[in-house]
Amino acid sequence: MSALTVTDASLDGERVGLRCAADGTIAALGPEVAAEPGEETLDAAGAILVPPLVNGHTHAAMTLFRGSGGDLPLMPWLEERIWPVEAKLEPEDVYWGTRLACLEMIRSGTTRFWDMYWHPAEIARAVADAGVRAAIGAPFIDMGSDLDAQRAAAREQLEMLTGIGGPIRAALAPHAIYTVGEESLRFLAGLSAEFDAPLQIHLSETKPEVDDCIGAHGVRPAVYLDQLGVLSERTVLAHGVWLDDEELDLIAARGATIVSNPAANMKLAVGKVFDWPSARAAGVRVGLGTDGAGSNDSLDLLADLKLFALAQRHAAADATAVAVDDAWAIATGAKAPLLGATPLAVGEPADFVLLDPDAPELSFGEQTADLVYAADRTAVDTVVVSGKVLMRGGRQPERDEVVAKARERASRLGL
Amino acid sequence: MSALTVTDASLDGERVGLRCAADGTIAALGPEVAAEPGEETLDAAGAILVPPLVNGHTHAAMTLFRGSGGDLPLMPWLEERIWPVEAKLEPEDVYWGTRLACLEMIRSGTTRFWDMYWHPAEIARAVADAGVRAAIGAPFIDMGSDLDAQRAAAREQLEMLTGIGGPIRAALAPHAIYTVGEESLRFLAGLSAEFDAPLQIHLSETKPEVDDCIGAHGVRPAVYLDQLGVLSERTVLAHGVWLDDEELDLIAARGATIVSNPAANMKLAVGKVFDWPSARAAGVRVGLGTDGAGSNDSLDLLADLKLFALAQRHAAADATAVAVDDAWAIATGAKAPLLGATPLAVGEPADFVLLDPDAPELSFGEQTADLVYAADRTAVDTVVVSGKVLMRGGRQPERDEVVAKARERASRLGL
Repeated sequence: MSALTVTDASLDGERVGLRCAADGTIAALGPEVAAEPGEETLDAAGAILVPPLVNGHTHAAMTLFRGSGGDLPLMPWLEERIWPVEAKLEPEDVYWGTRLACLEMIRSGTTRFWDMYWHPAEIARAVADAGVRAAIGAPFIDMGSDLDAQRAAAREQLEMLTGIGGPIRAALAPHAIYTVGEESLRFLAGLSAEFDAPLQIHLSETKPEVDDCIGAHGVRPAVYLDQLGVLSERTVLAHGVWLDDEELDLIAARGATIVSNPAANMKLAVGKVFDWPSARAAGVRVGLGTDGAGSNDSLDLLADLKLFALAQRHAAADATAVAVDDAWAIATGAKAPLLGATPLAVGEPADFVLLDPDAPELSFGEQTADLVYAADRTAVDTVVVSGKVLMRGGRQPERDEVVAKARERASRLGL
Repeated sequence: MSALTVTDASLDGERVGLRCAADGTIAALGPEVAAEPGEETLDAAGAILVPPLVNGHTHAAMTLFRGSGGDLPLMPWLEERIWPVEAKLEPEDVYWGTRLACLEMIRSGTTRFWDMYWHPAEIARAVADAGVRAAIGAPFIDMGSDLDAQRAAAREQLEMLTGIGGPIRAALAPHAIYTVGEESLRFLAGLSAEFDAPLQIHLSETKPEVDDCIGAHGVRPAVYLDQLGVLSERTVLAHGVWLDDEELDLIAARGATIVSNPAANMKLAVGKVFDWPSARAAGVRVGLGTDGAGSNDSLDLLADLKLFALAQRHAAADATAVAVDDAWAIATGAKAPLLGATPLAVGEPADFVLLDPDAPELSFGEQTADLVYAADRTAVDTVVVSGKVLMRGGRQPERDEVVAKARERASRLGL
């Protein structure tokens, strides 16, 4: 099959064509690229070409838990609604929950995500079937007495995920400093270095977490992680709400990435939002995430991009707290090399999004300002990953089947 | 023409039909309502029937200003971008800006809005042409020396709007306590009583407004308004961010309505959000608004419903700060009789929304929780006002024409 060529797209106000190579990268991009006879062609009809969004932190299969106990505070919600159900999770539940999450993320222009959830082989299968990309790590929580066996299993899981390749990036995912002990954290940091695998961890999401860390270890969470060798260019820190300036400097020095999840932080009422102005000043690498549907409850990163910007302006009581260019770059992964942004450039993966140029919300004013503050996913017309069209005209042919299967799994779980 | 009958809709989990009367009200609603031969029928195919949203505060025609200078702080934004352009506004600009706003609001399930903007006759024409409903008041700002002439013009405008009737509700709109003096405020309060016309005013949006009011009048803004006779069951107070508990008690006692605009408040970085838990405790009537596209920049109230709930939980650092049922009721106008909610009941206007039952975001968990936290306007399938279908399958046939005309007007204004 010939590779896809997109014609008549609008890139920074200029009409361009984009030719995909057979290997799924961008072979050519520019005003001179036109369709050739016999090629598979997609006429963008003036649609706006932008890079896809990167969801830097989620628990994809938790789509099945959506809308369940949303008014409950965190601990009763976990104890009454989430944990009893997670205890009954089967691999097929995770597969369909993840397929549904992929469907929703594609609808909003997200083609790559960072996932932390159980049954990682099923996550990988769902990601491959959906046609997107993901960095996947199974949560590691110190449980029971045989931690050596758990650590050996983590190594095996990492090897298994590494072996999949393609759109799957193998990652480690120690859950948090309050659920994983020092020895396991050191071990997982070592595995991360040995495999050159990313390590994602929840950090500094709530104030009690910080207080408890100081109480137990005498230092704040980022310093504690650094003492165990966990902070590196391979590290993704989800949340980072309660970090102080010294921690931000340390994280910047180590080259670690913080992923802000404003919707989840506000929904769980942790009392603060991630401090972008300070992180920017410190030079920290930053991305944006939705977190899981259990605590958001949508996986629409384009919506959360607006929320991120609004929350920053609100928290700083300063309308200049975040520039629209920075906000957009954060949502596309361009402010954190580890996350896997796909710039629109020859040789990069042919992953891109076409936006409806006649969407009312994109038809006035400055494009980036509109993308951040006005546009929503009704403007996302076409999504392409690795040269393959996953959505066109907002239509997703597999939607009803995926929703039906996921519903079956949710009912089985009593959700 | 026979009136519309909707079949196979889902209302609170039950299959129902809904028959519209020729006068645009609901003639019948329930499981027994079925299509009759020769009737105009809409097969909802299991779609979820909900009341429409009510946008309690906006400046609709400011869609033309969208994305213009969004990173600027408030005063430079007004002085450099907004006011110089507003000085050049022609009636036709307001007509097409309002048509565009109506299009966007219909897309997100909003069928009634409260508008404060220039050239109210053009707003009324646009509202009627779009098929929605609005309460309209031209901003009143004390300008120049001939305030008597201004007040006489306000009376004439109110009479003109009152004469239109139908979907248009005539309102008064003194801009704010810092732009309208005591004498004009007393006059407009009198007009409001004389015509039984609603009066909308921006109140307590920023802390400087409160401080200046105390400095000038020795009392806080709500007390000051009350001393001038402005607080009544006819009053809509937009924002109310910096009100204290005594002011909330006073507003509740007078039966006035506060409309919260969380997106605009966060975008303009006013430093606080409206305090729903205190307002609820005081018994205040509350609605939700988008504010104008200049300071939001979207008119999607369904998105702002989530933002409202998140902002409340965040501000209170309490995940139980707002119940999903309350949030939904606020967005549909059901918590403030003045705003004009249209309940799904026989004899009420046949205004309603059908939501896609297979939208992933509505397919799991509790419906109201999903509506508040998960669903977005991609789930809004059909919008009906007064028995007339304004949108079906998410398609709005007039969209491209309205966008094109509005773009022409925006270019003319140099936007």
